[in-house]
Amino acid sequence: MAVTEGAGGEAERDRLTVPQGLAALSLDALASVAYGPEAIVLVLAVAGPRGLEFALPVTLAIVVLLAALIFSYRQVIAAFPNGGGAYAVAGRHLGRRVSLVAAASLIIDYVLNVAVSVSAGVAALTSAFPALYGDRVVICLAVLALITAVNLYGIAESAKVLILPALVFVAAVLTVIAAGLLRSHPVIAPAQPGAATQGVGLLLLLKAFASGCAALTGVEAIANAVPTFRTPRVRRAQQTEIALGGLLGAMLIGLSLLIRRFHAAPTGGKTLLAQLTEASIGHNLGFYVVQFATMALLALAANTSFGGMPVLTSLLARDHHLPHVFALRADRQVYRHGVLVLALAALVLLVGAQGDTQALVPVFAIGVFIGFTISQVGMVRHWLAERGPGWRGRAALNGVGAVLTAAATVIELVAKFGEGGWLVFLAVAVLVLLFEAVHRSYRRIGRALRVDEVPGPPQPRRSLVVVPVGAVDLLTREALSAALSMGDEVRAVTVVYQDDEAAAERMRADWAAWHPQVPLIPLPSRTRSLTRPIVDYLRRVDAEEHGHERLVVLIPEIHLPHPWQRLLQNQRGVVLDLALRRYTDAVICRLRFRLRMPD
Amino acid sequence: MAVTEGAGGEAERDRLTVPQGLAALSLDALASVAYGPEAIVLVLAVAGPRGLEFALPVTLAIVVLLAALIFSYRQVIAAFPNGGGAYAVAGRHLGRRVSLVAAASLIIDYVLNVAVSVSAGVAALTSAFPALYGDRVVICLAVLALITAVNLYGIAESAKVLILPALVFVAAVLTVIAAGLLRSHPVIAPAQPGAATQGVGLLLLLKAFASGCAALTGVEAIANAVPTFRTPRVRRAQQTEIALGGLLGAMLIGLSLLIRRFHAAPTGGKTLLAQLTEASIGHNLGFYVVQFATMALLALAANTSFGGMPVLTSLLARDHHLPHVFALRADRQVYRHGVLVLALAALVLLVGAQGDTQALVPVFAIGVFIGFTISQVGMVRHWLAERGPGWRGRAALNGVGAVLTAAATVIELVAKFGEGGWLVFLAVAVLVLLFEAVHRSYRRIGRALRVDEVPGPPQPRRSLVVVPVGAVDLLTREALSAALSMGDEVRAVTVVYQDDEAAAERMRADWAAWHPQVPLIPLPSRTRSLTRPIVDYLRRVDAEEHGHERLVVLIPEIHLPHPWQRLLQNQRGVVLDLALRRYTDAVICRLRFRLRMPD
Repeated sequence: MAVTEGAGGEAERDRLTVPQGLAALSLDALASVAYGPEAIVLVLAVAGPRGLEFALPVTLAIVVLLAALIFSYRQVIAAFPNGGGAYAVAGRHLGRRVSLVAAASLIIDYVLNVAVSVSAGVAALTSAFPALYGDRVVICLAVLALITAVNLYGIAESAKVLILPALVFVAAVLTVIAAGLLRSHPVIAPAQPGAATQGVGLLLLLKAFASGCAALTGVEAIANAVPTFRTPRVRRAQQTEIALGGLLGAMLIGLSLLIRRFHAAPTGGKTLLAQLTEASIGHNLGFYVVQFATMALLALAANTSFGGMPVLTSLLARDHHLPHVFALRADRQVYRHGVLVLALAALVLLVGAQGDTQALVPVFAIGVFIGFTISQVGMVRHWLAERGPGWRGRAALNGVGAVLTAAATVIELVAKFGEGGWLVFLAVAVLVLLFEAVHRSYRRIGRALRVDEVPGPPQPRRSLVVVPVGAVDLLTREALSAALSMGDEVRAVTVVYQDDEAAAERMRADWAAWHPQVPLIPLPSRTRSLTRPIVDYLRRVDAEEHGHERLVVLIPEIHLPHPWQRLLQNQRGVVLDLALRRYTDAVICRLRFRLRMPD
Repeated sequence: MAVTEGAGGEAERDRLTVPQGLAALSLDALASVAYGPEAIVLVLAVAGPRGLEFALPVTLAIVVLLAALIFSYRQVIAAFPNGGGAYAVAGRHLGRRVSLVAAASLIIDYVLNVAVSVSAGVAALTSAFPALYGDRVVICLAVLALITAVNLYGIAESAKVLILPALVFVAAVLTVIAAGLLRSHPVIAPAQPGAATQGVGLLLLLKAFASGCAALTGVEAIANAVPTFRTPRVRRAQQTEIALGGLLGAMLIGLSLLIRRFHAAPTGGKTLLAQLTEASIGHNLGFYVVQFATMALLALAANTSFGGMPVLTSLLARDHHLPHVFALRADRQVYRHGVLVLALAALVLLVGAQGDTQALVPVFAIGVFIGFTISQVGMVRHWLAERGPGWRGRAALNGVGAVLTAAATVIELVAKFGEGGWLVFLAVAVLVLLFEAVHRSYRRIGRALRVDEVPGPPQPRRSLVVVPVGAVDLLTREALSAALSMGDEVRAVTVVYQDDEAAAERMRADWAAWHPQVPLIPLPSRTRSLTRPIVDYLRRVDAEEHGHERLVVLIPEIHLPHPWQRLLQNQRGVVLDLALRRYTDAVICRLRFRLRMPD
């Protein structure tokens, strides 16, 4: 989280180098090798051993797409050095409506990334400890709760901390690949494909391709966060992007070679990565290291959504597409709501999918590729508009990217429409409608506020400050002092309970003895309500007196030093504040009087 | 609920007659025959058939105690026509400390009454439908949830509505008794006592007596609520008390005669009352009517706690023994907290006792009798102090009551100390310590506020009103108008985000075009926080400028007509309000500007 958040104000030495950028921004891209290859195999397995032969070609097609994406994003980095997410690129070059589609698909991605990463991480764990498999949903929810708690209470996270798990994971996967390729027979035989239930057709291959594209999620993150790099920012960000592409491509191809060599097939309880690890290095300490590293990296990958989503929602809020409160993301209290909403949405998905990663992966890829396509098309428009040096070549490169990602998106939508794709479609539509509705409301509010006109000058009026008091003491004195500083006329009011006339009489006598030059008006309360008499009085003044047009209520409160002492006070103020706000138009002021307690 | 609440303001015709008083105030006393006799039998059953012979004598002893209580409370009614709960009587005559013990035991009683009545009501239900017995805890919680919901959302309940269930219940029990006494052999044999595991000793009889005293809970309620009766209040209340005593005594003796006649013994799944009903009238429609009437009456009995507790806690709050917020009981929002606390405490007891009434009954009697004893002793002191006509006789009567109830209390504590009595003891002690701590804190606060001195006169000072603004529009104009009405000096501040210089520039230009005679101060925000720059600015002004000593912040807010529109606004105000309240001493004012929206 939060790596991109302080973008505006950090010192240069806190910014990212290439390895740090790789760890901080590419975690979820790297982690996706834990579920991407499995998604391909899962589709091909219905065609039996012959189907699995196609894992390598499908993977190669995905790596070609990866290469196109990497080079395209290299250009995005250069063109949008202030951070060029799909929302920003589309907003500049493709119009508001398309940018909203991009934003909606990004939000869906953030949610799905949490759900997919958590369930895949737990799958790594249950592969190491099969006894836990039955409880995987509960474990998923526990991991989600932990990540949510970390983000609610905000543990500062530096990019340096992330290098170690990323390094261990990449090293572990590469070791598994190397060991597996050097060995001709598996140490422990992975699951063997069952009989074919279906032939290998084009649709099957397209489906496998579509599912496998989930391995490419996250390659756009570097381009969104160029300002967080150390100077020369653009160069470093580009190098990071290339490094990511190289590592990811190598891992994907390596793993698909192992699948081919060991004839691995999907099983219920054990992830494909776990099977390949056992086949390559055996069921030993190394196996557990790989599983734990995978689990840790996936948990961190889930965590990145909690950092990315607030940036996007604050941009949307600034453009009046979400309630403005989302623009206040640096205020902890507000930020928490976003964290909880994200966690809740992920929870629904995790429970709905019963903790099964592969139920979510196909859907995941769709949202991501909508964003990819929009970015690429936007970049083509960018080069056509700018026509800088070499614009033809650049436009062509992004054009190829656009065609490939658009084709992938269409393939995904067609192949997966029945398996949840329609849900992404629906969610994007609902979100876009929501953004539009919010935007329309703000336009109407703006018109009502006449933001486009120069308003008349402000007009001071006579003010009457009403101060509810309960006793003659230092607090009341402080409140009247403040009221006299603020108003042209000040009146104290005190609520008199019908069944406690003695208290009312004492109050009157005390006030007379004090004679503070402010009238005390007793307000009888029949029902022992504190708020009703005051509300009624203010309405009466508002309706009957016309000498002052600005009604102010000053609610004095004692501020006590210890939190437990605060239970003893203040609630009258809260209750009164709420009632007055609800039923009157008065300006409501609250005065906190810090009480020095005797020792 | 709430029968006693509006004591101050009702019309005479809404007040209680004798039958209404019996229904409204004696529900839980009458309902206690559903679990009282069973509590006796449960203790005696360990001595086998010979033990159960003693059910009648033990009941007679309890009825003698009942008579003493009824006549004592007749005198309490006459002496405290404004309502004489144990807390009030003790406070007047026995000192603060004793009155707090009375209050603590009353609070414990309210909670136990809810738990006991709910579980006994559900026991009546599961006696009719044994298949539900396994789910009794869940059913208890559902009933509790229903009663809580009714009280949270406040359904007005008139005493007239309560007459019917009370009448049906009393008529049903009396019919069962009459039918049973006229029949020499049971229609359906009730459970027979097993072999004796223990002889009949004094301790056993005392234990049976102590448990059976639970049947007397609630006889004090009439005396607490004299003002709710129709004139002549005292006479009517006294007649109600006598009628309650007669009915309760008759039912207790009648039921114990049936126990003797049919040799009934306790069983797991069926209440004693259900067994006696079957033995007397058979397992027919009448049986189900009795069970449902019992269930309904017990639910209503549980409900009375929700009406009684707020009255007591508001008295405690008025005497500074509980946070003053409890005195605001007429304010719905506050009242709800009390309802939830009561429900939660009852929930803990119900789950702890696994829905078993008889696990709670022995403990219930202890708290009630502490209150009885304190009342009686207080009344003796009352007559000794007043020495009105016939004071010797009255003092003697209350003295007898005091001795009997004190003896019962000691018996209960001794007999039941190990079975939960210690818990009541502990709870009373903790509550009294809490009341004392709250009282001490209020005394310290009072000293700090110098409530006993006449304070110096209030001193108006120069005020500076700071208005956070975000745009030049009607809202800002309204805010500056209000600020100019309230302050000697007004400054507008606007937070400028480092990465959005264009917006800042636009704001400056708009302000210059408007020139409202109020300076606009830009406050740069490095971290995109809205609150931090404003807090820092106010602290700077407070520390560096000395021309004005009263700092006021006016937060303008738009008020939109529809609730869903409010999601679009206002949260900035809330966030800012909280931050300013936390970190500064400024007077914080919030202005609601009702926006008229264009159609």
